[in-house]
Amino acid sequence: MATRRTRRTAPPPASPWRSRQGAGARTLKREAVIRMAARAFNQRGYHNTSLDDVARMLGVTKPTLYYYVHNKEDLLFECFRTGLKPIRAALREIRAQRAPARERLRQVLLQYAEAIASDYGGCMVRAEDLHLGTKLHAEVKRLKSEIDHGIRRLLRAGMADGSIARSDPKMTAFAIAGALNWIAHWYRENQALNAAEVARSFVALFERGLEPR
Amino acid sequence: MATRRTRRTAPPPASPWRSRQGAGARTLKREAVIRMAARAFNQRGYHNTSLDDVARMLGVTKPTLYYYVHNKEDLLFECFRTGLKPIRAALREIRAQRAPARERLRQVLLQYAEAIASDYGGCMVRAEDLHLGTKLHAEVKRLKSEIDHGIRRLLRAGMADGSIARSDPKMTAFAIAGALNWIAHWYRENQALNAAEVARSFVALFERGLEPR
Repeated sequence: MATRRTRRTAPPPASPWRSRQGAGARTLKREAVIRMAARAFNQRGYHNTSLDDVARMLGVTKPTLYYYVHNKEDLLFECFRTGLKPIRAALREIRAQRAPARERLRQVLLQYAEAIASDYGGCMVRAEDLHLGTKLHAEVKRLKSEIDHGIRRLLRAGMADGSIARSDPKMTAFAIAGALNWIAHWYRENQALNAAEVARSFVALFERGLEPR
Repeated sequence: MATRRTRRTAPPPASPWRSRQGAGARTLKREAVIRMAARAFNQRGYHNTSLDDVARMLGVTKPTLYYYVHNKEDLLFECFRTGLKPIRAALREIRAQRAPARERLRQVLLQYAEAIASDYGGCMVRAEDLHLGTKLHAEVKRLKSEIDHGIRRLLRAGMADGSIARSDPKMTAFAIAGALNWIAHWYRENQALNAAEVARSFVALFERGLEPR
């Protein structure tokens, strides 16, 4: 976020404030606020973005914004949590599967890579460094640790079922997370590969590396 | 750098200002300034560290500091460049070698991983985001690109000499750099593995991944 390069992004979605009300309208609007904040943080940097900026980008007033979030820190945390959602969902879904652990890990890592290449990637990898209050900081660490341990568990399961070569699960999980988190530093929309293609290409690399000989 | 976690570091080296003068004394002192700055940036964050802080840590006056560097930005850039030095040296050294490219790449990556786990790692991975002036920012990008391209060249050479499995060299170089750069976010001295051990363990992972089937 605190970067000079402008993140080229797709045009912003039509503001849900301009469409008619209906069931789920509040949820839709809240999601729009969070997505727009993530884009603003990417483009201007977190410290250089005010709630006024986000309100202006959405074409709403600042009091309208306060209906959905308490403050800027809250907004950053929601961006972080929204980005993590599909990864946590993938970790839950694969629990019921009987496929070899390498295949289950592949599904989680695909979601992980896509999330990091999304609008939320910047917030996901920088939230811990951005001086959130003590409570939110602890929550960010807890959620990150949950995912780290989910990946380590899959690595250990793969070493046990023979689908993953033996290595130190902690180091391997760190290497995988590092390679994936770094995507947020270099990936921009509108380049040769879309997010899903980057995800597939990275996960294919790990797959080869994890395969037992 | 902009992190709340305190980076636990080894005790600072004896200040060279307290020892007698001699040939190379200026170089030694300059190196001490740069290393101390790197530690200060890691501990307090770049934005929260002043030249006064660095002078105090070294037990010298601020005017003494100005004898070695122009300003804080200059100091950050020197930390970045010092960290890069062993990687660039490794890239030069392997040019004369006839070993398979995978072996040459291994040597470069070991240096890379050790550099990132050193005092300079934080400055190396964050220099681009820290609002350096236009000229230094361009120089940081140029040096980073030199290393990125050096790694891609080795990957291509390995695909040509059969020592490295075929993949997209750009994606693979990004994945490797990401995994290694991330070490700066989690590695602290005085933990179970020292920098060289972390380096060996990460490089072993890549080696397995790069091996042709």
